[in-house]
Amino acid sequence: MTTDIALGLTDKLEAARTASIALAQASTAQRDAGLEAIAAAVESSAGDILPANELDLANGRENGLSTGLIDRLTLNEARLAGLAKAVREIIALPDPVGDVVRGSTLPNGLQLTQVRVPFGVIGAIYEARPNVTIDIASLALKSGNASVLRGGSAAENTNRVLVRIIQDALESVGLPRDAVQTIDEFGREGATQLMAARGYVDVLIPRGSQNLIDTVVRESKVPVIETGAGVVHVYLDESAETQMAVDIVVNAKVQRPSVCNAAETLLVHRAAADRLVPPVLAALAAENVQLHADERARELHVDAVPVTEDDYTIEHMALEMNVRVVDDLDEAIAHIRRYSTKHTEAIVTNDYAQAERFLAEVDAAVVMVNASTRFTDGGEFGFGAEVGISTQKLHARGPMGLRELTSTKWIVRGTGQIRG
Amino acid sequence: MTTDIALGLTDKLEAARTASIALAQASTAQRDAGLEAIAAAVESSAGDILPANELDLANGRENGLSTGLIDRLTLNEARLAGLAKAVREIIALPDPVGDVVRGSTLPNGLQLTQVRVPFGVIGAIYEARPNVTIDIASLALKSGNASVLRGGSAAENTNRVLVRIIQDALESVGLPRDAVQTIDEFGREGATQLMAARGYVDVLIPRGSQNLIDTVVRESKVPVIETGAGVVHVYLDESAETQMAVDIVVNAKVQRPSVCNAAETLLVHRAAADRLVPPVLAALAAENVQLHADERARELHVDAVPVTEDDYTIEHMALEMNVRVVDDLDEAIAHIRRYSTKHTEAIVTNDYAQAERFLAEVDAAVVMVNASTRFTDGGEFGFGAEVGISTQKLHARGPMGLRELTSTKWIVRGTGQIRG
Repeated sequence: MTTDIALGLTDKLEAARTASIALAQASTAQRDAGLEAIAAAVESSAGDILPANELDLANGRENGLSTGLIDRLTLNEARLAGLAKAVREIIALPDPVGDVVRGSTLPNGLQLTQVRVPFGVIGAIYEARPNVTIDIASLALKSGNASVLRGGSAAENTNRVLVRIIQDALESVGLPRDAVQTIDEFGREGATQLMAARGYVDVLIPRGSQNLIDTVVRESKVPVIETGAGVVHVYLDESAETQMAVDIVVNAKVQRPSVCNAAETLLVHRAAADRLVPPVLAALAAENVQLHADERARELHVDAVPVTEDDYTIEHMALEMNVRVVDDLDEAIAHIRRYSTKHTEAIVTNDYAQAERFLAEVDAAVVMVNASTRFTDGGEFGFGAEVGISTQKLHARGPMGLRELTSTKWIVRGTGQIRG
Repeated sequence: MTTDIALGLTDKLEAARTASIALAQASTAQRDAGLEAIAAAVESSAGDILPANELDLANGRENGLSTGLIDRLTLNEARLAGLAKAVREIIALPDPVGDVVRGSTLPNGLQLTQVRVPFGVIGAIYEARPNVTIDIASLALKSGNASVLRGGSAAENTNRVLVRIIQDALESVGLPRDAVQTIDEFGREGATQLMAARGYVDVLIPRGSQNLIDTVVRESKVPVIETGAGVVHVYLDESAETQMAVDIVVNAKVQRPSVCNAAETLLVHRAAADRLVPPVLAALAAENVQLHADERARELHVDAVPVTEDDYTIEHMALEMNVRVVDDLDEAIAHIRRYSTKHTEAIVTNDYAQAERFLAEVDAAVVMVNASTRFTDGGEFGFGAEVGISTQKLHARGPMGLRELTSTKWIVRGTGQIRG
């Protein structure tokens, strides 16, 4: 147990722990009933939610929140319907709790089974996006976990109403209301203390900007699942088909440039540069992508600014892309090793040996041949819900589904065995 | 990447990272050859190792190291042979690297496979036990990982020779010598910096006292796998068979009291106390176990001191045991919930419903029915090597085998798919 946690917060954490015990014993049907009650309440409570949201929006505008942040903070009837739909999609997913991971019978007759169990209490620290409140609470509930939420203070009024609605919904189906809690009232200090609450909180998930994630990773004493940035590369090998190269690079960059699985840097094999650089860069330019290219690429496509060392290190999160011509696969892998955040890396090639080398030697959560990096996504992978994409190597790596919100427990059944 | 790491240490960490890349691509046969070279070198290098060890022992005696610590620090021909044997046992284990965890083909034809890959660089911080140097280096090598070792300064001379011998052995079979490194020369500061080396070190394993583990868990910015203390309980249910109860409790307490899976507290159902307490406590007393008992138990066995609140919270690590009579399973579970370190918990019962409730409701890495808690062990579970027993819920829980020293990577094979 840790110290220096405010008394009121300790009470909430203890209550969450107690609720988590009941939740872990609740059946899938009971937890799904809780989720359905939440979905129904979100749909029917616009009269409570939207005025609270309007208050946050008014404060936000007064405090000069950017248009983008105001948009993320905004709820309306259509978005509430979307949230309810998302909760129902979570209901439809298989419950990971109780799955048998492996088992054996030992020579002495002991029967071993490793089964999935909920973590217990999941903490979440995120920014002013009220949808994340519903999202994390629902994912936690589906996987049998209690959740303690610290949302951005700019969404405090909205979150307070949302959590109350969730708690009422839980209570209405006989589940403990303390299973979902907000600690927004403790402000910034609450987030700090949540990170110190080892023994109370089993795992902490930061969601939001890289800055927020870095802070949580650096400060937290509670184990963290890190969902990190993506400095994602696409490498066009000598044997890449031209049209496939164009399609994949444009899709990886343009389809949704503001997300972590969008590509930032294009690497092209020198021997195919004459063939590939002009059409690929022309296609990108036609989609209004601003190009930062090295000297060799600019010889083949003049409408690009010189790429800098800094460009290679950042997530543009915009219609900007770096382009570099490399001597061979080794140089491509070396570049990726240097700049990759180990999220997603792709090669476009028709050479079997080059493909296998890329898959084996590139160290990333997801490595791809001949596919758009935009496929690194829980939904696309068939996991249903979007918990996030882990860029750490411990516990979860890559798109995280409900399974990644569980731990395991060994069950040993004996008939009186003792150790000799 | 992190800052504030001494230049020489950064060099070592960079070299370990580079070596880890080669190691991850090495075949099982190559890594096994490295292990065999290490085993052979440990056997044939007594002339180098024992004088260095003698130097550490002399320093230790001068610094007043306890007999126990001196014993743990001591190497001799027999212990070297034991170490070589342990390395060969690791060779015999299956290689987890490359195992396919799961996979699927998506509706769009993308083929997904999740495969086991090494973490990369494993850091270890441990106390003055030279066997741990061989142990961790070998487990890391088998699982395709480089290792950076910070042993206790009291074993510095021994470790320096051991690591040199390991490095020479690696080189002799064409593996990178930097794959195993000691940072002992950086002293206490080296340990601190290893804990800050996020981006260089993928996972940090503390091995040793609870104090050491707590420090690493508290300070480390690198993800930690925690192997924690065991405040382990055995609960004798109303229906427990008397002889089975005696055998399991005595084995759980007496067979090796200094380890984490030894039992600390005995809980007995009130309705069976008259039948069970006298023979079980007499059997414990016959094995020289000092008993700390509550009032109800002392009425049935006078030769016990009153148990205190403190007794319930500590790992005795000795022939001492707490005894408490409880009203029912609920009270037993409540006691366990309050004092357990979530390592191993056991019930002795012949009542099916009580057994199932105990297994479901007690939250621990290992829960048992009718078996000695001493079975919580990687070797006993059939994992072969003893990495430790994790008491955390993230990544690994319970006995850890080689599998727990790996991460995973998603491989996606496409034919030009893009996201719509």
